Amino acid sequence: MTGHFMLLNTKKHLLPKNCSVEKREQMGSKGEVVVENKEWVLSAYAPQGVPTSDHLKLRTTKLTLSIDSIPDGHVALQLLWLSIDPYLRTRMTGNQEGLYFPQFELNQVVNGFGVAKVIASKDKAYKDGDIVLNPFILVAEYCVVPTNFLQKVNSSVEIPLPEYLSALGVPGFAAWIAIEVLANAKEGENVFISAAAGGVGMFAGQLAKIKGCRVIGSTGSDEKVKLLKEEFRYNDAFNYNKENDYDVALSKYFPNGIDIYLENVGGKMLEAVLNHVNYRARIPVCGMISQYNQVWNEREGVRNLLNMVGKEVRMEGYLVGSYLDRFGDFAKEMEDYMKQKKISSKLKIYSGIECFLESLASIFSGSNIGKVVIQVKHDA
Amino acid sequence: MTGHFMLLNTKKHLLPKNCSVEKREQMGSKGEVVVENKEWVLSAYAPQGVPTSDHLKLRTTKLTLSIDSIPDGHVALQLLWLSIDPYLRTRMTGNQEGLYFPQFELNQVVNGFGVAKVIASKDKAYKDGDIVLNPFILVAEYCVVPTNFLQKVNSSVEIPLPEYLSALGVPGFAAWIAIEVLANAKEGENVFISAAAGGVGMFAGQLAKIKGCRVIGSTGSDEKVKLLKEEFRYNDAFNYNKENDYDVALSKYFPNGIDIYLENVGGKMLEAVLNHVNYRARIPVCGMISQYNQVWNEREGVRNLLNMVGKEVRMEGYLVGSYLDRFGDFAKEMEDYMKQKKISSKLKIYSGIECFLESLASIFSGSNIGKVVIQVKHDA
Repeated sequence: MTGHFMLLNTKKHLLPKNCSVEKREQMGSKGEVVVENKEWVLSAYAPQGVPTSDHLKLRTTKLTLSIDSIPDGHVALQLLWLSIDPYLRTRMTGNQEGLYFPQFELNQVVNGFGVAKVIASKDKAYKDGDIVLNPFILVAEYCVVPTNFLQKVNSSVEIPLPEYLSALGVPGFAAWIAIEVLANAKEGENVFISAAAGGVGMFAGQLAKIKGCRVIGSTGSDEKVKLLKEEFRYNDAFNYNKENDYDVALSKYFPNGIDIYLENVGGKMLEAVLNHVNYRARIPVCGMISQYNQVWNEREGVRNLLNMVGKEVRMEGYLVGSYLDRFGDFAKEMEDYMKQKKISSKLKIYSGIECFLESLASIFSGSNIGKVVIQVKHDA
Repeated sequence: MTGHFMLLNTKKHLLPKNCSVEKREQMGSKGEVVVENKEWVLSAYAPQGVPTSDHLKLRTTKLTLSIDSIPDGHVALQLLWLSIDPYLRTRMTGNQEGLYFPQFELNQVVNGFGVAKVIASKDKAYKDGDIVLNPFILVAEYCVVPTNFLQKVNSSVEIPLPEYLSALGVPGFAAWIAIEVLANAKEGENVFISAAAGGVGMFAGQLAKIKGCRVIGSTGSDEKVKLLKEEFRYNDAFNYNKENDYDVALSKYFPNGIDIYLENVGGKMLEAVLNHVNYRARIPVCGMISQYNQVWNEREGVRNLLNMVGKEVRMEGYLVGSYLDRFGDFAKEMEDYMKQKKISSKLKIYSGIECFLESLASIFSGSNIGKVVIQVKHDA
């Protein structure tokens, strides 16, 4: 054995910056490696509000990793990069109603989408050092998982690893499904992107621009408005915090109405949009960031859904996991765009798994620019 | 001339039952026929509430019909049957927002969908006595219209004329589009029909049953519940007026969740449904009868649209006019079903054009069973 744990044994892995340095592994009496493993546990459901340390607790356990202890068809992974997404929050309410992914279990380590390195393998398709995507990786520095959900990252492509959680990951794919599959954007159409500087929004707007659409974004700060126009090439953008009346704003920015609305926020913005939709408008519903932290019957109701009839509007919720058969098409197209510099990407990088709670809360604060990720391993 | 007006001249046409009998036509000095023509005029918009005699006024005018006065490509029509539909109300608010059909013009005769008889023709494709459908016929006993929107009714089929406004008309077609085109109902799926004893609902439920679905309806009286189960062969049905909590009702009637919801009512029922939808549920939005009579920002808001994401729900408004390329498929299928007695139909018949306002108000009262029509000509 032990070859599998070379990386650990030689201490080449560095600790996250914020992490107190301590002895993190030791050779046990039987050639085992014992690592100190920081991991996040759901200690209580949070029916509403942004989750706090009352709900999510960081703990350190000792994890014994011996090749003999890894079941066949499993690998030991070291988490490198973790994706921070709104759907994580929906799995912490304790209320399964209306949700596809199950609730996280109480007193268990939560999971998310991550890029990890194989550090020990009992599956001949994977070897030490392989970089893999795992949509259900534990929010822990190390874990042992079955290989059936893993996807190898082709590291020969000159794209930084965290972009596999962003442009080439869930946000990029979510944007592509919305714009190309569900909305099937056509040249000259009027496209409105909410949460436009967020993980999905930034790619959706750029993909619509590539299709020849007129693209307007809404976002939460003047800094982000500038970014949308200058870096993401939006035709125009506005700061929703400065608009007293979304109806007035949309009248101004969409004199010819809205053909496609990427729904990322919900509530009053959706309501305003429904007053400006064109005939056969499409509304892919990616998320409703304004609505996640409230129990449903305290959320803002949308009162003008009747407009969907007269304008034949189609509103459609979607999960990227249901479109995996299209992932290859997406990845090829997106890689081409990135190589041609047709798509810009912004990452908001938190450092260290200790930041999980803070980074999760941040995506509901409207303060982030770009895709939020945690660099779990400092030199990943 | 005159041949064209034989029907009028020989007084074979009978007056609506409720209509005071009076001399309704007279030969003018130049061989013209002058008819007294009852017609409904929009005198004021009704932004909210059920329209009243403040908004719609019956007037009697004299209409001169001479073959020379009919433009080429036009016909003179006598209205036989008029369809009473919720969309008529949406054209009387004075607010075009979110609507496809334009608002009716003030002080003009309103129009609707009707079956009429050609009584004079300046289009060689039409001859006296032809029975035609006209989606934009004036709500008047007589009118002169261009022939481009007319569709001849094949009277050889043994189906009563008003069924061309019902099973084989807009409600039947709307039901068929919802169940077969938009929802694409599959055997064994759980289907919920709101306003289930109404014009669209009664056909939608029966079409879903034919497809092998389990069909539950909601409606506003015990009498209608009985009808749904006994005559329309619904698996079950409930009276929403007797349910304090729609969520509880849907838990009871849909232990396995809802795959298809035909949205006819809006507001709280839609909200309850969104708490019971299955993965990839489809919600064709035909109308929202509970919402028509309120200005939009006083309507009941739907607060749980976020459920559309996790369950990948598709909600889609539609207008039958956009699917006319499928009308032939529909008509063939529906005629077959009717001949095979697989589809039952109920008509709520008002008698006389004088009843236009009363019949329109009735469709918002929840009191009707089946499709509401006016028999304008007593012996049509």
